[in-house]
Amino acid sequence: MKRFRAGVIRVITLSDQKMRDLHGGLIEKYIPQIETESVCIEDQPEGVHSLYTKAMAVPKVIKAAGKFKDPDVIIVSCADDPGVPELRELLRIPVVGAGSSAAAFARLYGKRTGVIGITDYAPEPFERVFGDGIINLGRPEGVKSTLDLMTDKGKSSVIKKAKQLKEAGADSISLVCTGMSTIGVAADIERALDIPVVDPVLAEAVFAYHEILRTKI
Amino acid sequence: MKRFRAGVIRVITLSDQKMRDLHGGLIEKYIPQIETESVCIEDQPEGVHSLYTKAMAVPKVIKAAGKFKDPDVIIVSCADDPGVPELRELLRIPVVGAGSSAAAFARLYGKRTGVIGITDYAPEPFERVFGDGIINLGRPEGVKSTLDLMTDKGKSSVIKKAKQLKEAGADSISLVCTGMSTIGVAADIERALDIPVVDPVLAEAVFAYHEILRTKI
Repeated sequence: MKRFRAGVIRVITLSDQKMRDLHGGLIEKYIPQIETESVCIEDQPEGVHSLYTKAMAVPKVIKAAGKFKDPDVIIVSCADDPGVPELRELLRIPVVGAGSSAAAFARLYGKRTGVIGITDYAPEPFERVFGDGIINLGRPEGVKSTLDLMTDKGKSSVIKKAKQLKEAGADSISLVCTGMSTIGVAADIERALDIPVVDPVLAEAVFAYHEILRTKI
Repeated sequence: MKRFRAGVIRVITLSDQKMRDLHGGLIEKYIPQIETESVCIEDQPEGVHSLYTKAMAVPKVIKAAGKFKDPDVIIVSCADDPGVPELRELLRIPVVGAGSSAAAFARLYGKRTGVIGITDYAPEPFERVFGDGIINLGRPEGVKSTLDLMTDKGKSSVIKKAKQLKEAGADSISLVCTGMSTIGVAADIERALDIPVVDPVLAEAVFAYHEILRTKI
């Protein structure tokens, strides 16, 4: 099978390689044609969870992008898309963000999407695509970090929030934290509530493949 | 490689099987995990090229969808998305239209897209996603049907129109006729003008794969 190379930027400093490669592994599972290499931004063990930490991440994302050897596409694996517009300006290859990818896919299911993340604000790419169509009822109860998502309590709290968003009129549920992808909660929500759920790592993987096909074939 | 099945509906009556399978072949080339079966709507050799012919096609598309045996996804391979909202209401499996898929991908490149097709109106899925952001300067000169696209003159007329749309401020070019996909003009435009070009058959293929991954994995 023909292989394409994707450089995956993690917007959190992780020393554990298995943790660092978690998103890349999902991307390769979804699109076997893609081979990933993952790089973390430096000096930001707390990741991106606010407008301030997003702004801090931007120059680090640009620096991280320079570490890949001849990639076909660069994926910034964060729903906030830190550094994505800047990298698009700087590079000649396609740059994909989890946030803009997820927002575009969510738009396919209707004009209103309910966002679930670990912050109280909706990521900027969603604001840009949905404007007033975003339904945001805040964080799932008891969930403040991706670690909280890994417990059964965290998962059921996410499903409860999704139910409230559906009742509030959402056409789809958008998971706006990539930690939601690694716990695989999208399928749980779809099963429980019968509503399309947009998973940010799946969305970035599929859009990256679109960009590869658009520019390489 | 695991295989998924896509039922592809062609909104034109074609007796030639090679012609009928043209979109399916592209979809399989883009996503080797997908196996396609193509069915044409009945009694519409002129295809869909107006709001009237679109309305005529809707019940025929619904009928055609009943001919597939246990597909994982149904693709209505037309930028006008005839029957897509209706099929989504009727079926339990994902339904993908070329128009809404292309519009969603185009949204990833910015707020303004320039449409090129064989009709003077922009397809409804684009109106829905872009509103005032559509730039429509009419059909390429001398192009009234997909047949006109297959000549060198037709191709250069498309590229000329794309240039005008870029100069008018388009962030991307959206090809809104699947006949543009079969002549492969997207790559020619990208090379000539350095602007992202959205190809409707590529877009529906990639979105269909997203839907398969969303519901099957």
